[in-house]
Amino acid sequence: MSTIRQYLANRLQQIGINDYFIVPGDYNLALLDQMLLNEHLHMINCCNELNAGYAADGYCRANGVAAMVVTFSVGGLSAVNAIAGAYAEDLPVIIISGGPNTNAAPLHQLLHHTTGEHDFRYVRDMLEKVTVKSVIIDDAQTAAYLIDDTIMHAVRHQKPVYIEIACNLSGYPIEPPQALSFLNVNRSDALSLEAAVSCAASMLNNAKKPALVAGVKLRPAKATSAMQLLIDVSRYGVAAMPTAKGFIDETQKNYMGIYWGAISSPSCANIVESSDAYLFAGTILTDYSSTGYSMVIDPHKLIVANIDSVVVAGVTFNQVLLADFLSELAKKIHLNTASYDAFKRIQGEADMYQTAELNDPIKIRNVFSKLEKMLNADSTVMVDTGDSWFNGARLHLPKGCTYEVQMQYGSIGWSVGATFGYALATKGKRRVISCIGDGSFQMTAQEIANMIRYQANLIIFIINNGGYTIEAEIHDGPYNIIKNWQYSELIKAFSTEENHAWACQEKK
Amino acid sequence: MSTIRQYLANRLQQIGINDYFIVPGDYNLALLDQMLLNEHLHMINCCNELNAGYAADGYCRANGVAAMVVTFSVGGLSAVNAIAGAYAEDLPVIIISGGPNTNAAPLHQLLHHTTGEHDFRYVRDMLEKVTVKSVIIDDAQTAAYLIDDTIMHAVRHQKPVYIEIACNLSGYPIEPPQALSFLNVNRSDALSLEAAVSCAASMLNNAKKPALVAGVKLRPAKATSAMQLLIDVSRYGVAAMPTAKGFIDETQKNYMGIYWGAISSPSCANIVESSDAYLFAGTILTDYSSTGYSMVIDPHKLIVANIDSVVVAGVTFNQVLLADFLSELAKKIHLNTASYDAFKRIQGEADMYQTAELNDPIKIRNVFSKLEKMLNADSTVMVDTGDSWFNGARLHLPKGCTYEVQMQYGSIGWSVGATFGYALATKGKRRVISCIGDGSFQMTAQEIANMIRYQANLIIFIINNGGYTIEAEIHDGPYNIIKNWQYSELIKAFSTEENHAWACQEKK
Amino acid sequence: MSTIRQYLANRLQQIGINDYFIVPGDYNLALLDQMLLNEHLHMINCCNELNAGYAADGYCRANGVAAMVVTFSVGGLSAVNAIAGAYAEDLPVIIISGGPNTNAAPLHQLLHHTTGEHDFRYVRDMLEKVTVKSVIIDDAQTAAYLIDDTIMHAVRHQKPVYIEIACNLSGYPIEPPQALSFLNVNRSDALSLEAAVSCAASMLNNAKKPALVAGVKLRPAKATSAMQLLIDVSRYGVAAMPTAKGFIDETQKNYMGIYWGAISSPSCANIVESSDAYLFAGTILTDYSSTGYSMVIDPHKLIVANIDSVVVAGVTFNQVLLADFLSELAKKIHLNTASYDAFKRIQGEADMYQTAELNDPIKIRNVFSKLEKMLNADSTVMVDTGDSWFNGARLHLPKGCTYEVQMQYGSIGWSVGATFGYALATKGKRRVISCIGDGSFQMTAQEIANMIRYQANLIIFIINNGGYTIEAEIHDGPYNIIKNWQYSELIKAFSTEENHAWACQEKK
Amino acid sequence: MSTIRQYLANRLQQIGINDYFIVPGDYNLALLDQMLLNEHLHMINCCNELNAGYAADGYCRANGVAAMVVTFSVGGLSAVNAIAGAYAEDLPVIIISGGPNTNAAPLHQLLHHTTGEHDFRYVRDMLEKVTVKSVIIDDAQTAAYLIDDTIMHAVRHQKPVYIEIACNLSGYPIEPPQALSFLNVNRSDALSLEAAVSCAASMLNNAKKPALVAGVKLRPAKATSAMQLLIDVSRYGVAAMPTAKGFIDETQKNYMGIYWGAISSPSCANIVESSDAYLFAGTILTDYSSTGYSMVIDPHKLIVANIDSVVVAGVTFNQVLLADFLSELAKKIHLNTASYDAFKRIQGEADMYQTAELNDPIKIRNVFSKLEKMLNADSTVMVDTGDSWFNGARLHLPKGCTYEVQMQYGSIGWSVGATFGYALATKGKRRVISCIGDGSFQMTAQEIANMIRYQANLIIFIINNGGYTIEAEIHDGPYNIIKNWQYSELIKAFSTEENHAWACQEKK
Repeated sequence: MSTIRQYLANRLQQIGINDYFIVPGDYNLALLDQMLLNEHLHMINCCNELNAGYAADGYCRANGVAAMVVTFSVGGLSAVNAIAGAYAEDLPVIIISGGPNTNAAPLHQLLHHTTGEHDFRYVRDMLEKVTVKSVIIDDAQTAAYLIDDTIMHAVRHQKPVYIEIACNLSGYPIEPPQALSFLNVNRSDALSLEAAVSCAASMLNNAKKPALVAGVKLRPAKATSAMQLLIDVSRYGVAAMPTAKGFIDETQKNYMGIYWGAISSPSCANIVESSDAYLFAGTILTDYSSTGYSMVIDPHKLIVANIDSVVVAGVTFNQVLLADFLSELAKKIHLNTASYDAFKRIQGEADMYQTAELNDPIKIRNVFSKLEKMLNADSTVMVDTGDSWFNGARLHLPKGCTYEVQMQYGSIGWSVGATFGYALATKGKRRVISCIGDGSFQMTAQEIANMIRYQANLIIFIINNGGYTIEAEIHDGPYNIIKNWQYSELIKAFSTEENHAWACQEKK
Repeated sequence: MSTIRQYLANRLQQIGINDYFIVPGDYNLALLDQMLLNEHLHMINCCNELNAGYAADGYCRANGVAAMVVTFSVGGLSAVNAIAGAYAEDLPVIIISGGPNTNAAPLHQLLHHTTGEHDFRYVRDMLEKVTVKSVIIDDAQTAAYLIDDTIMHAVRHQKPVYIEIACNLSGYPIEPPQALSFLNVNRSDALSLEAAVSCAASMLNNAKKPALVAGVKLRPAKATSAMQLLIDVSRYGVAAMPTAKGFIDETQKNYMGIYWGAISSPSCANIVESSDAYLFAGTILTDYSSTGYSMVIDPHKLIVANIDSVVVAGVTFNQVLLADFLSELAKKIHLNTASYDAFKRIQGEADMYQTAELNDPIKIRNVFSKLEKMLNADSTVMVDTGDSWFNGARLHLPKGCTYEVQMQYGSIGWSVGATFGYALATKGKRRVISCIGDGSFQMTAQEIANMIRYQANLIIFIINNGGYTIEAEIHDGPYNIIKNWQYSELIKAFSTEENHAWACQEKK
Repeated sequence: MSTIRQYLANRLQQIGINDYFIVPGDYNLALLDQMLLNEHLHMINCCNELNAGYAADGYCRANGVAAMVVTFSVGGLSAVNAIAGAYAEDLPVIIISGGPNTNAAPLHQLLHHTTGEHDFRYVRDMLEKVTVKSVIIDDAQTAAYLIDDTIMHAVRHQKPVYIEIACNLSGYPIEPPQALSFLNVNRSDALSLEAAVSCAASMLNNAKKPALVAGVKLRPAKATSAMQLLIDVSRYGVAAMPTAKGFIDETQKNYMGIYWGAISSPSCANIVESSDAYLFAGTILTDYSSTGYSMVIDPHKLIVANIDSVVVAGVTFNQVLLADFLSELAKKIHLNTASYDAFKRIQGEADMYQTAELNDPIKIRNVFSKLEKMLNADSTVMVDTGDSWFNGARLHLPKGCTYEVQMQYGSIGWSVGATFGYALATKGKRRVISCIGDGSFQMTAQEIANMIRYQANLIIFIINNGGYTIEAEIHDGPYNIIKNWQYSELIKAFSTEENHAWACQEKK
Repeated sequence: MSTIRQYLANRLQQIGINDYFIVPGDYNLALLDQMLLNEHLHMINCCNELNAGYAADGYCRANGVAAMVVTFSVGGLSAVNAIAGAYAEDLPVIIISGGPNTNAAPLHQLLHHTTGEHDFRYVRDMLEKVTVKSVIIDDAQTAAYLIDDTIMHAVRHQKPVYIEIACNLSGYPIEPPQALSFLNVNRSDALSLEAAVSCAASMLNNAKKPALVAGVKLRPAKATSAMQLLIDVSRYGVAAMPTAKGFIDETQKNYMGIYWGAISSPSCANIVESSDAYLFAGTILTDYSSTGYSMVIDPHKLIVANIDSVVVAGVTFNQVLLADFLSELAKKIHLNTASYDAFKRIQGEADMYQTAELNDPIKIRNVFSKLEKMLNADSTVMVDTGDSWFNGARLHLPKGCTYEVQMQYGSIGWSVGATFGYALATKGKRRVISCIGDGSFQMTAQEIANMIRYQANLIIFIINNGGYTIEAEIHDGPYNIIKNWQYSELIKAFSTEENHAWACQEKK
C-alpha cells in the first residue's frame, strides 16, 4: 500500500520532476514529510509563494513540467498571480495545497487561514479561473483517479492545475500508482487535417513570395520540430514573433528576425507584410505582441495555424493539431526562397549591438553588446518585462542558446523567481543570464537569497534606471520613481559564511 | 464637471483617507495622475502589490478605512492574499484597479496582462470571493452610483471591496460627488433587540458569578465603547480573546487577561469557564482562537452577541446589532463583582515578563520584558503570526497602547506591510513597535526600503530563530529551516544618502 | 423546542403567508408534514414546479410575499424560470427545497435527482444567479439565523430567495422563533436625501410645465402612497409606464394615460416629452418598456428617482430611498397644473373601446370593450405577454381595480399560474379576470385543473388567434403556428364530479 | 459564403439530426428561418421548453444526438431541468438559444426577457453547471471554431452543451463548414490499458465463479458491443443494473436478470454477490440504483470498469476507455460458465407476469402482463419515474426491443416529452409504448397535442392511481393526492378535424 501523498509524490517523479518549490505551512507539513522520502525529488524552499510560483514557472520552461507545494489559502492565494502567469504562458505548473480536514465542514468548524466563514472551497473556486482543472481531494477512493486526471489535464492542455488535499487524508493508505504514460490523448480529426493541409498547401504553392511566422504556441503544441521541418523543406523566409524568440534557430539561412509590427527587426515586417501568402504558426496577437494592432495583415492571404485548428483565408478547419498540420504540410509544400531572397536584398545594415570596448561607459547598448558576446550554445537569456524586452529582442542568439520572456502576462518581478527555477532545472548544463530592471527586481528581490542557498550559479544584470522606465516612456509621473537601493549591498545581506555570491555595482 | 477618477478620488478623501498605497502599471497611470491632483491624498509607492495590500490593512486598522491602487490582473491577483486577509479581519480596504478599455471585449481583442483569452472578468470574479462587493465600472452613467454603492458596502460590512475602472473611462466627465455621510444604514429590529436584551439581562442578573469575554468583532461592529460601558456598569470580570487584545483597557480593575482556552492567562480560563453565565461579545471561535476547541463552555450558560444577532442559551435573536445590544443591556444589568473577586482570590503569581537587566543575554523572554518597558499610551505593538503571538499575548499594555495581530488569517509576512501602513496612518502620533520572526520577515522584507523612503519612524524587532519555529514546534522537518540573512546589512542596502535607517544585530 | 422545519413554517406564517404552493418529492415530504401541522398555512398542490412558481408570483403580487416548496434539483430547476421572473419583477418569493442529507457529501455518496456527480451545490449555485440570497441549511446551530437572514433579504430587496434544507436536518430540534418585525432596515442617508430633494424641488419649481411619470419600482420601494401624495400636492399631469399600469389611480383628475414611447396613450407622450422638467419615479427603461428606446427624453430636464438613488439632470444622489424622496419632495413642491392643462387641451377623441353590442361578432376590440364594462373596484385584470399587453394597456381601470402584467420578464404562460395564485390570495375579496393568448395558454394549461380543485373562482379569456401572434407581427414564419385545441373540452377533462368549471367557445 | 446560423444548421445536419425541437421567441426567429431553409432538418414545435427538452432527451436516446432551439432566458431557464436530466443521463443534447445583440451590453441597455439588470451572461453561467460546455457566440471570426468545438464537447463527453448566439450576429456571413468527422478524439493510454487488462484478466481467470454486471455508462462509452463480445467469450452469468435494462440482450443464455440490490430479480443478487470475482462494467451506484446501498459487494473481489478508468480490487488504472478495456479483456478471458450454471440451479419460479385473461379486472400486474405480450423486436418501452420503474424492471424484453428509463435524474413528467422525441426519431421503424403515472402525466400533459399534430403514432398507458403513489409508499400524506382528471376527455380537447388520437378510460 501507498499513501495518497506518496502516490502524488510518485506521480510527480514519474512525469519528470526533480525539484519542487515550497513554502511550508501547517496544512502541508505531513505532505512535505512524505515528499522528502522520495529520494528523486528535491525540496526547494522559497521566501514566499509568489516567488515559488515564478520559480516553478521558470523550472517548467526548461523541464516541461513543474510542481509547487503551498499551505491553505494564505499560500495558494499568494501564489495565484504566478499561476495566472503560467496559464497565460502555457506552462503546466502543478500547484499542490494542503486543505482543511474533511470533517471540518460537516462539523461546521471555523478555521484559521480562512476568511472566517464556513465556505472552505473559495480557494479552489478562485484557482479554477486560472488553471485548467482545480480539484479538492477529499475522498480516498477517488483520490488516485483525481490526481492522475488532474495531472493529465495539465499535460494535455499545457496549463497549470491546482490539487488541494485535505490534511487528514493525505496519509490515508491507497494502492500505489500504476503504469501510465501521461501522453496527450488528443489527436487530429483525419478528415479535417487532410482538408486543412490541402487547402493551405494549395494557397502557399500558388503564392509567389510566401513567408512563415513562428509564434509562441509552438511550444505548448510541441510543434517546434515540425516547424523546423517545414522551414527546411520550404526554404521560405521565416520570422519569429517576439514571444517566440528562441523557439527557432536564429542562425539558420532563412531567418529574417523578429516580426513585431511597427517595431520589427529591420526589413522583417516589410517582407512579411508584402508577401502574397503567410503562414502564422502558433501565433497569438495581443495589443503588446502586435504593438497596438499595428500589423498590416490581409486576412485573405493569411493562414493561421492555431493549437487545435487552422484558418486558411477565413475558412476554419477544426480539430487539427498544430504539429500534425505542420508535418503534413511539409510533405506537400514546394521549395520557394523568394521571400528570403527579397529579405536579403533589402536588408539594411545589421541591427547588431555595436561592439563595445572594455572602457566604454556603461550604457544599455554597451551592456547588451557585451552580454551578446557571452552567449553560447549552453546559455539561456531571460529578460523581465519592461525595457529589457526591447533590448533582448535585438540580441542575436547563437545556435542552441535559449531565450525566455513572459510577454503575454508581463508581470514584473517574474524573472527573479523564473531565473532561479530555470537555473535549477538546467544546473550543470546551462548558464542562465538575466536582465532585470530595478522596478521588477524590487518586487521579488529576496529570492536571491535562495539562489545563493541552492547554488544556482546564474548571472543577473540589474539595470538600475531609477524606476519603472517603460512606464515613464508611455506615460510619466512621480509614481514611476522608486526608492534607490544599494543592490550590491543586498547581496552581502543574503550571503553568509556557508554560501555567498559576488556582486558589483557601477556608480551612476 | 468632474471625471470618474476625480469623483473616486474625492470620495476617498471624504471617507477619511489621506495616504493610499500603489504599484503603478499601464492600466492605472491616468487614474494615478488624477489622484495626485487631489492635494489631500498622498501616494505611497510600494515594492509589490502584496506589500501594498498589507500596508493598506495596517493603515485601515489605525484609520478605519484604506485604499490601494493596482494595475489590471498582475496587480489585483498579486494583492489578493492581502485582500483575503482584510476580509478575514473585517477591514474595509478599497482595492482599485485599472481595467481593459470598454471596447476591447466587444472588439474581441486579446490583451497583455491577461490569461490570453477573451474573458476579462476573471479578476473581478476572483476578487468577489474575498470582498463584499466587486464591480467593474464600464459605463459612465452609472459610475457615480456604483462607486458610492461599493464604498458603502465596505463601510456597512467592514469588509474589503474591489473597484475596477475601465482605462478609457476613468477620464470621462461626470457630475461631481454630492453630500453623502457614508454611515452604516443597517439598524436593529426594535422588537428583536428588546427581546434579546430582556432575555440576556434576565439570565445574567440571575447568575451568581457572571463574566464577560471581549471578541474581535467588537471593532467592525463599532461596539468597543458600548462594551466598555457594560464593563463599567456590570463590574463583571472581563477577559479578552487573543484576537481582541488591546480592544479593552488592560489596566482597568475588572480585567482578568487573555481567554484562549488551554493557553489562557493564569486563572483567567478558570474563572470564565466556572461562571454560571458568560457573555461572549463579538467573539469568533476558530481552531486557533479556541486552541483546538479546548474551551470548556456550556451552551446553556452562554450568551453570544454576534455582529448582527444574539444567541442566548441557544435562542437566536436576529437583526440585533452588537453595539445596540451592549448599550441597551448596560441599562438593565445589575452590578456583580463576584467573578472578578474570585479571580483576584485565585490569581497566582503575575505572569509579567521578569525584569531583564541591561547585560542579560538576549533571550525571547528578556526581549519582551524590555519591550514591555518601552510601551506607553502612544505605542502600538504589532506581532506577526507565529511565536510572537504567544509572547505578545503576555504583554501588559499600558492604557492607550494599542495592539494588532492578524490571527484569523494568519498570513506570515503580513506585519511588515501592516506596520508600514499603521505607522503612516499614525505618523506623529504613535510609535509602532513590531515583532517579526525571520521566516515572516523574509516574505515581505523589501518593504523596509519604503519605510525608509517615507520616514515611517517605526521600530522592528526581527527575532531570528533560524526558520519557521512555530511550525517546528508543531511538526518539525527540514522545510522549517530557512536561509540565514545578515539582517542588519539589509538595512544598509535599503539606505541611501537621502534617507536611511539604523540597524544592529546580535550574534547568535 | 421547535424543529427547523417548524421554525421555518412559523416564520412563513409570521410574515403573512397563508397559502403556499408545492410539488411534493422525496426530499421534501417530512418538511411538508410539518408545514401541514401549522393550521394557518394552507398547502396548494400544483401540477408542476414552473406553474407553482408562477402561482407564487401571482400570490406575491397580491399578498406582498409568497412561498413555494419543491424537491431537490428536479424541483428547483423546474421552477427556476418562474424565480427569474420574480427577480425581474421585484417579487419576494421564497422558494424552499429539500436537499441531500448532510452526510451524503462527506461519505462521497452519489444520489438520485442529481447530475450523477459529487457536487450537490449546483442547484444553489444556479438559483443564486436569480435570487438575492440562496442558502443551504446544513447545520442546526446556525439554522435559525440563516432562515431569518434569508427571509430578511427577500423583504429588504423585494427579490426572491432560495432556502435548501438538508433532508435529515429539517426535523432537528432548535429553539423556537423569537419576536422579529422583518421590516426593511435600510434607510436614507440624511445628508443625501436633503440634497436630492432640494435639488429636485428647485428644478421642478422653476419649470413651467413639469410632469410626472410613474414606474414599476414604486411597488417594491413601497412608494405608491408617497407618489400619490406628490401627485395630489403638485397637481402635475401624471402618466404611468405600461409596467406600472394600475399602480396609480386612473380616475384621478391629473391622469394622462400610459407613457410608452411611440405607442403611448393619445397625447400623453406629447405632453411628457414637451415638458421642461419631468420626474420619472421608479421607472426602468428597457427595449420593451421604451418601445425600442423611442422615447424623446432630454437628460438635462430629467429627474429619475430610483429605488435607492436619485439622479437630477445627471447629478447622482446615493442612498436616497424612493418613498423618502417622494414624501420629502411633496413638502417642497409648488402646485402647477400646466402640463395637465395642456394635456386636456390637446387630448383627442377618447381611446376607449367602442361600446360593443351583444350580438356583435367576436373581435378583440369587442372583447376588451365588454371586459372593460365588467370591471369594478374589486376586479383585477391580468394579461399575459403578447398581444394582450397592448389591448390591456388601453383599458380604463375603475378606482380600486388592480392590474398585473409581467412585462420585464415577459415569459409567456406566466399568467395561468399567476392568475391562480392571485385569485387564492384575494379569495372572497377580488375577482380576477385574465386575458391569455393560445400560445401562452398551452405552456401551462394544466394548472386550470387545480384552479378548479381549489375553487379559485376566476375568469379566463383565452384569445385563440392560432399561434404566437405577437411574434407573427414582428417576424412571421411557420414556427408561429401552433396546434389548435378544443379549449372548452379541456375544461371538461379537468372537471370531475367533486368540482368543475364552466367553459364555452366561439367557433372561428 | 454562409451565415453563422446556416453554419450551425449544416453542422446539426452533418452530425445526424433530422428533427429539432423548438419554442419560438423574438430572440430566435431569424435563426429559425434559416434552419427552415435546410431541407434535411424538420422543425418540431413544442408547447413549452421543458417539454421540448424532454423531447430532445428522448430523441437523443434513439438517435445518438439531439438539438433544441429556445429564446433567451425565458426559454433556456424553462428548459434547464431537462438539460440537467440529459447531463445526468449522458445524452448529448445541444440546446441553442438566441441572445442579446452584441451591442446591448457595451451600450449598457436594459432588455426584456432578462432580470432587469446589466448582466446578460447569467443564463450561460447557469447552464454551464449542467452542461459540459456553454458558450456565447458574440464574435464572427471565432464563431465557426466555437460552434464546432462545442458540438465536439457534446460528442466526446456524451453530455449536453449550450450555444447562445447573439441575435444580430446569427446572420453574419462566414465561410461554410469544412469536412469534420466529429469523432471522439479521446483514446486509451496504451501502457495503462495493457496493465489494467492484464490485472483484471488474471483476477477473473483465477476466479471460480466470476460474474458480469452491465451498467448505464455502457451507452455513453459506446461499449455495448464490446460488452456483448465479452459475454459471448466468457459465458459468465451476466446481470444488468436497472438503469441499463435493455442495453444487453435479455434472451441470451447467460442472462440472469436485473441486479438491483435488495430488489433484484429472483436469484440474481444471490449469484452476483456470492461470486468470487465480479466485473461491473459502466455501472454507477447511487442511493436509488443500489436501493439504499443495500448491495453486498466485497471491494477485493470487484473490478469496476468506468468510462475512462478501471479499478481492480482497489487499484486504479487511469485513461482506460471502457470499450477498449472490454474488447481487450475479451481476448484474454477464459470461458467459465460456473456463475450462470449456479444461477440456473437455484433460479426459482419465473418472475414473469402471470398470464392475464381478457376479462380479468384491470390491475397493474395484469396490465403489464398484457403489455409484455405486445412487445416485439420493433418495440420500445419507456417508463416514467415512480411505480412504473418496478413494474417495468420485471418485463421480459424480446430480442431487439429497447427500453428507456430516466433513473439517475428521475424527474417525473419526463416520459411524456421523451416518448414524443423517441417516437419521432424512430418513426416508421419502432412503436413506442409508455407507462406513465397520473402524477407524472399531469406535469407535462399538453405535449400529447403535439404528438397528435406530428402523428408520432405511439401508445401511452396512463396509470391513474390517484396521486404520487411511489411517494405514498415511502412516506404518505395529503400532498400525494392530486386532482383527478378525465384523461380520455383530454385527448378530445387535443384532437381536431385535421389530426386526432384515440383514447379510452377504465372506470375505477
